[in-house]
Amino acid sequence: MAPLTPRLVVPIDVKKQPWEQKIPLHNRWHPDIPPVADVTEGELFRVEMVDWTGGRVRDDNSADDIKFMDLTITHYLSGPLRIVDSEGVPASPGDLLVVEICNLGPLPGDEWGYTAIFERDNGGGFLTDHFPSARKAIWYFEGIYAYSPQIPGVRFPGLTHPGIMGTAPSVELLNIWNEREKRLAETSPETLKLCEVLHQRPLANLPTPENCLLGKIQKGTAEWHKMANEAARTIPGRENGGNCDIKNLSRGSKVYLPVFVEGANLSTGDMHFSQGDGEVSFCGAIEMSGFLELKCEIIRGGMKEYLTPVGPTPLHVNPIFEIGPVEPRFSEWLVFEGISVDESGKQHFLDASVAYKRAVLNAIEYLSRFGYSKEQVYLLLSCCPCEGRISGIVDSPNAVATLAIPTAIFDQDIKPKHLRGRPAPKMIRLPDLLSCSNDGSLPVTQDQSGRSVP
Amino acid sequence: MAPLTPRLVVPIDVKKQPWEQKIPLHNRWHPDIPPVADVTEGELFRVEMVDWTGGRVRDDNSADDIKFMDLTITHYLSGPLRIVDSEGVPASPGDLLVVEICNLGPLPGDEWGYTAIFERDNGGGFLTDHFPSARKAIWYFEGIYAYSPQIPGVRFPGLTHPGIMGTAPSVELLNIWNEREKRLAETSPETLKLCEVLHQRPLANLPTPENCLLGKIQKGTAEWHKMANEAARTIPGRENGGNCDIKNLSRGSKVYLPVFVEGANLSTGDMHFSQGDGEVSFCGAIEMSGFLELKCEIIRGGMKEYLTPVGPTPLHVNPIFEIGPVEPRFSEWLVFEGISVDESGKQHFLDASVAYKRAVLNAIEYLSRFGYSKEQVYLLLSCCPCEGRISGIVDSPNAVATLAIPTAIFDQDIKPKHLRGRPAPKMIRLPDLLSCSNDGSLPVTQDQSGRSVP
Amino acid sequence: MAPLTPRLVVPIDVKKQPWEQKIPLHNRWHPDIPPVADVTEGELFRVEMVDWTGGRVRDDNSADDIKFMDLTITHYLSGPLRIVDSEGVPASPGDLLVVEICNLGPLPGDEWGYTAIFERDNGGGFLTDHFPSARKAIWYFEGIYAYSPQIPGVRFPGLTHPGIMGTAPSVELLNIWNEREKRLAETSPETLKLCEVLHQRPLANLPTPENCLLGKIQKGTAEWHKMANEAARTIPGRENGGNCDIKNLSRGSKVYLPVFVEGANLSTGDMHFSQGDGEVSFCGAIEMSGFLELKCEIIRGGMKEYLTPVGPTPLHVNPIFEIGPVEPRFSEWLVFEGISVDESGKQHFLDASVAYKRAVLNAIEYLSRFGYSKEQVYLLLSCCPCEGRISGIVDSPNAVATLAIPTAIFDQDIKPKHLRGRPAPKMIRLPDLLSCSNDGSLPVTQDQSGRSVP
Amino acid sequence: MAPLTPRLVVPIDVKKQPWEQKIPLHNRWHPDIPPVADVTEGELFRVEMVDWTGGRVRDDNSADDIKFMDLTITHYLSGPLRIVDSEGVPASPGDLLVVEICNLGPLPGDEWGYTAIFERDNGGGFLTDHFPSARKAIWYFEGIYAYSPQIPGVRFPGLTHPGIMGTAPSVELLNIWNEREKRLAETSPETLKLCEVLHQRPLANLPTPENCLLGKIQKGTAEWHKMANEAARTIPGRENGGNCDIKNLSRGSKVYLPVFVEGANLSTGDMHFSQGDGEVSFCGAIEMSGFLELKCEIIRGGMKEYLTPVGPTPLHVNPIFEIGPVEPRFSEWLVFEGISVDESGKQHFLDASVAYKRAVLNAIEYLSRFGYSKEQVYLLLSCCPCEGRISGIVDSPNAVATLAIPTAIFDQDIKPKHLRGRPAPKMIRLPDLLSCSNDGSLPVTQDQSGRSVP
Repeated sequence: MAPLTPRLVVPIDVKKQPWEQKIPLHNRWHPDIPPVADVTEGELFRVEMVDWTGGRVRDDNSADDIKFMDLTITHYLSGPLRIVDSEGVPASPGDLLVVEICNLGPLPGDEWGYTAIFERDNGGGFLTDHFPSARKAIWYFEGIYAYSPQIPGVRFPGLTHPGIMGTAPSVELLNIWNEREKRLAETSPETLKLCEVLHQRPLANLPTPENCLLGKIQKGTAEWHKMANEAARTIPGRENGGNCDIKNLSRGSKVYLPVFVEGANLSTGDMHFSQGDGEVSFCGAIEMSGFLELKCEIIRGGMKEYLTPVGPTPLHVNPIFEIGPVEPRFSEWLVFEGISVDESGKQHFLDASVAYKRAVLNAIEYLSRFGYSKEQVYLLLSCCPCEGRISGIVDSPNAVATLAIPTAIFDQDIKPKHLRGRPAPKMIRLPDLLSCSNDGSLPVTQDQSGRSVP
Repeated sequence: MAPLTPRLVVPIDVKKQPWEQKIPLHNRWHPDIPPVADVTEGELFRVEMVDWTGGRVRDDNSADDIKFMDLTITHYLSGPLRIVDSEGVPASPGDLLVVEICNLGPLPGDEWGYTAIFERDNGGGFLTDHFPSARKAIWYFEGIYAYSPQIPGVRFPGLTHPGIMGTAPSVELLNIWNEREKRLAETSPETLKLCEVLHQRPLANLPTPENCLLGKIQKGTAEWHKMANEAARTIPGRENGGNCDIKNLSRGSKVYLPVFVEGANLSTGDMHFSQGDGEVSFCGAIEMSGFLELKCEIIRGGMKEYLTPVGPTPLHVNPIFEIGPVEPRFSEWLVFEGISVDESGKQHFLDASVAYKRAVLNAIEYLSRFGYSKEQVYLLLSCCPCEGRISGIVDSPNAVATLAIPTAIFDQDIKPKHLRGRPAPKMIRLPDLLSCSNDGSLPVTQDQSGRSVP
Repeated sequence: MAPLTPRLVVPIDVKKQPWEQKIPLHNRWHPDIPPVADVTEGELFRVEMVDWTGGRVRDDNSADDIKFMDLTITHYLSGPLRIVDSEGVPASPGDLLVVEICNLGPLPGDEWGYTAIFERDNGGGFLTDHFPSARKAIWYFEGIYAYSPQIPGVRFPGLTHPGIMGTAPSVELLNIWNEREKRLAETSPETLKLCEVLHQRPLANLPTPENCLLGKIQKGTAEWHKMANEAARTIPGRENGGNCDIKNLSRGSKVYLPVFVEGANLSTGDMHFSQGDGEVSFCGAIEMSGFLELKCEIIRGGMKEYLTPVGPTPLHVNPIFEIGPVEPRFSEWLVFEGISVDESGKQHFLDASVAYKRAVLNAIEYLSRFGYSKEQVYLLLSCCPCEGRISGIVDSPNAVATLAIPTAIFDQDIKPKHLRGRPAPKMIRLPDLLSCSNDGSLPVTQDQSGRSVP
Repeated sequence: MAPLTPRLVVPIDVKKQPWEQKIPLHNRWHPDIPPVADVTEGELFRVEMVDWTGGRVRDDNSADDIKFMDLTITHYLSGPLRIVDSEGVPASPGDLLVVEICNLGPLPGDEWGYTAIFERDNGGGFLTDHFPSARKAIWYFEGIYAYSPQIPGVRFPGLTHPGIMGTAPSVELLNIWNEREKRLAETSPETLKLCEVLHQRPLANLPTPENCLLGKIQKGTAEWHKMANEAARTIPGRENGGNCDIKNLSRGSKVYLPVFVEGANLSTGDMHFSQGDGEVSFCGAIEMSGFLELKCEIIRGGMKEYLTPVGPTPLHVNPIFEIGPVEPRFSEWLVFEGISVDESGKQHFLDASVAYKRAVLNAIEYLSRFGYSKEQVYLLLSCCPCEGRISGIVDSPNAVATLAIPTAIFDQDIKPKHLRGRPAPKMIRLPDLLSCSNDGSLPVTQDQSGRSVP
């Protein structure tokens, strides 16, 4: 019997542009994007992927690439893959597709990543009112570990995972997405605020032919034009999985994905070396190119058996996950709490987002006492293996959220303690994040004291 | 040297009513509630507590006690304790009070607890639109384990913790609380909705003399009247800690609490044998009486050193926590995901609460396939050691939340699998939750298919 | 339904002598020791126990009690308990008795323990050639944690367990024990060496009426005389379980014990707050009085089904264990290695004991660099939650053993590191172990350099 | 800054013979084997290695390659590497060399391994008296997981590690080794028994020019002849590290190795996908080719600072290890116990090897009830992530050893349980291990019942 080397079904050459790859990539969800390969149930196969920007972020000394990022492009995905059983019968709508992540990692020769804060007027992030300017950190990998010259004194093992894994939507599901998101986009901007802040610009991400890449569908053809006007954008996670950004979806995990089209048409992309729960700075994971070694199984009729819809149609379902056995172990965690009272002191009613924002802000203030700038901590909490929990969602009027940080990622003891006789925390000025040649004129709308600036 | 038996500073006799206890209890936060005992830094001491209702829920066959619960009473707290250093100098405003939970558990002779769904018109809960009727489950303890006759086939080790631990607010902080909560109560009911549902009734929990208990302050006195009209209610967690319901605050944990009044005036209560993140059914932890063995330390000036305010005053801070080393270990988790699309199919903008609600609903639907009623699962997810995470809060328009359930708590394999050749899941009708003598006329406002009922 | 308080079947009053307890104790294994109580399958019950010496070690300032310990007495056991099923039918020979440890801990009011080095001529220990003099440390408990004034700078959570749990042997099994141990005692002293050292004195522990305690059997009666001359001593673990000293047998664990006599006749004793693998100093666990909350189950015919004998009779079996879910978690371990070359440089052939001795000696030398005396470390490695592994047993001529120590138990960083710019390890002279009024004239037979002293 | 791809210092082409590799390999320890490359402190570098036999075991259908294995060859090592600091100054005798294992795994295209029982007259193993015939199992890797067609129903994540990592001995140390091992070889065969069994044949592994490979030293030269007659064999672990077979030395671990010669001369080999504590069947790990990504640090003078000799010279030291953070997590373990009474019923005095042998035999008997042959279980316990502990080494006359097996590696529930109403364990005859074309005439010297066969 031959050795069990995984079959390479999607190779990537990181020296080439995303649109020059041998197997064409795509950056939209659509039922008619043709599969690039067949994969048989039980077979071990390998999928490689570019980083989500397709190489537009560089290992250099400036955050200008982040500041001027064209966000109409976003995620380049590898696939779709048509999954068939051992008799060659493809997965069918109503089946459950089990994808086991047997292995994953960076591409050999490309062992680095980046994490960034988007500018408030181009992407934004969870704390964009506090940190409006584009910033960047580069991370280098030493096997399981990552470190950044821009955030010294921190090193941690990756809980590496694909940010995106999903099946193709059916026409019916695609219509549901487009209609509900269009309805949202048409509402007043007030409803598009997160914690009372216009969180993300541009506000809507509806289908657009601009920069649309549809795999084997030739750009400019009639078919391309029709599909490009319908195809869903890749930013949000949806019923098909997609950009779930679930940080624990690492080695040994399983994903149970609903099948909406014949063959399932599995796509994946947006590899993260590591991410914190929430990915708060938006470009917040350690973004990288990478590879996946996968194995699929088809549970015939599994959607009906295991995924009860919660919504008006049988398509209103979500994937299920199983966590793998080799996650990094940490035994000590420092936990920051937030309640649903915002920075101005205003009481919100059971708002978990406000509570989580407070927890993150509390952690930033705390850790900035140990020699870090607040932007450094903001980025760090986006990408290190921290856990964001909804601890209480019923104790009116305060939701309680917590952010737990493993203390072992720091090279100093960050726990509160008596200072008598002990060395003070490191207050030396450390190298900071990479900034832009010109930060422009974006005011901070929340000052230090929590008062919003008019 | 004498053996290190912890000094009992607050004894409880569960056969007596809360207001008959030797050391008087209180159910409000106020700076002027007199301390019931002094505790010295470094001393190991024991605090006992009644369950949050003070014995109003019984180990019987009906949920009527839940249905008609008088929610103006709520939590009975043990304390306040005045913390002094080894020279007898009390903790001062601006200090940080470190409370180590050395041990905790149920009171000997009272090894049981309960968990319940409140009626929609009297308390409600996170899914009150789906489960409007009062229900109850009794849990018995076998050492570290709990099981319930009303939710068969489930047994799990407790991650036991006090739901409430907090210091007394200063007058200034109390005023801040009362003002911001009053302002909220005065807004339109629309703003008091959680996931578009009137989540909780009564809607406001402002100070009221009704059923107010202020420790050593004699009821009916002028002092009592003044304080009762100012004293904050105990439902929400706030800057002083309070009802944080952080499920991991168990043996070996540390809490770093801000000190607002001289002596810190530490109070605690609302012991939980176990709770899931979010405590979704509101009376959702396994509620019990219990004891704490604590040790305190004072970090002089620690608030300024470690708790940077995020808000308009120096009092806008939150406690910090450290997790203990003896949490139950689980190696297999089944994870349910939710996105911010509600049961009617409506798209919400980055709403973590809607996403978490979807994740909980998905888990309920899934687990109800294994022989459970949906109400059983709703209660179980309130009290078992499940983890609720904010996985993505930036991928517009969908927030992504996850709910991870340890599979080892079930006596059957609950993972999705091929059914060929395997025994089907247990579909036998199991005993269900305890219900009421008369459920009344509370309609479900969300039906199975997710459509809201007018 | 009544609350599930465990039924107290063996109460202990630590202010009384072992032979004055209400329910009589025993310190031998014999089939005819009468049960002191019946316990029904599924019932939750509580067994209390004295410490193994029955109170002969005191919380004082000298190790004289250790030096002059009468080792003919040894372990006082609680029981035997007769286990019956729900119909009252007792467990029968050939059944498997499942004992679940639902809870355990120190007795309220007696929260302390001790650990000791026995004198070489009275007990000895694994390293008795290096540390021949009696020493003692007292440990105080703060809930889950223990600390000792005699070993400063160390504090750790207990992995508390009963050193002894066993069923009564049948007459046939008792004969097997007595014969094989007698045969050993009759061989030359050379064969009673461990790592070429006369490890333990007295060398044999055959049945003797001296200090024999047989529960309800009246001392001095004919029956007592007969039994006392046959009854097995409690030091070694055997086929019935007994003094296994398995440090992970803590909360939530299960023991599957073979049943040799009607009713199983379960006995238990020798509670340890914590122990390291190997319990190297012999009186090496943190010894204490304590309680167990247990639940039993009978697997009828389970011995045949699950315990295949390895030996000449069907009685040559050993118990099986399952580990519980709430062990303390440590994420960082420092690991010391030993090979089967002894301190004199002599090569032994695949001798795991020599290799483990080297690993322990290496750890002692290393840790003594951090401000500890070697005797302190020897005691610490006996009682802290360190893991002793047989890593390699086939790589001729060297067996490889390892000793892994969780670094979190120390209040200083004990990992090897560059010294440039860092504070040196604590070299201050710390308080040492309690010693004896007169150490006598026991020479160390192994000096620092590993050369044996003639 | 360039991406952090590790520099490949020892490449391997598995299609070539060990002696044909571009960078020559070696299979002995000797101070004068010339370094093949320099490595700088802090640099990330990659070392590839052949499997320990250099490709002599094939993925075929017979164990003949195992039966006739030429054991004079044994481990092919990659290296030696000369370690220098950032100024180019090499590590010096007396320094401590810190080697961090940043990553490791199988070589791409060669993702398989094997595990085997050696024939009693050619290698043997811990249970060679029970299992005298050569057997083999092939393991295929699916990313982090391994499975074997010869041991169905088992799959587990690898705790992958190099079996061998070591520094070159000095002349003085080499002499110590050769003298002490020669002295052992000259003693009577009686002393070369493990648990009274002639464990391993041939019995001595003293230096021999036969099949000696010394890296860049040309075979047949005078230098080669001199060195080949002195160079130490690679089977045992020794003061320099070497074949320690410590199964937890995986990703993220650190090894602190003593430096005996200038440059340290680090060598490594014998990659294991997984191994159980003890590696009981001798060729018992899942043996494979593989790669290491390493980073070194030099602690100047660290031997004196951290490695106190236990033995007659300053060279009698052993390495120290730190365990990495990404080990597979298991929450359920079934634990088998053994005491130092052998299969014939004979009592041994505190013999940890006999106790461990009993624990392994007990586990084999138990697991063979679940559809496995005993040889299958023997092999499985050699390579799966099971833990072998010395639980008690002082309770005369019985040492107690335990073997803990994670239950999650099986696809069936292997815990003891009531059989009423449950499916019986799988008793179907499973495919068995690969055997030999002719097993020859090796009698089992221990039969089922534990009686030795004359």
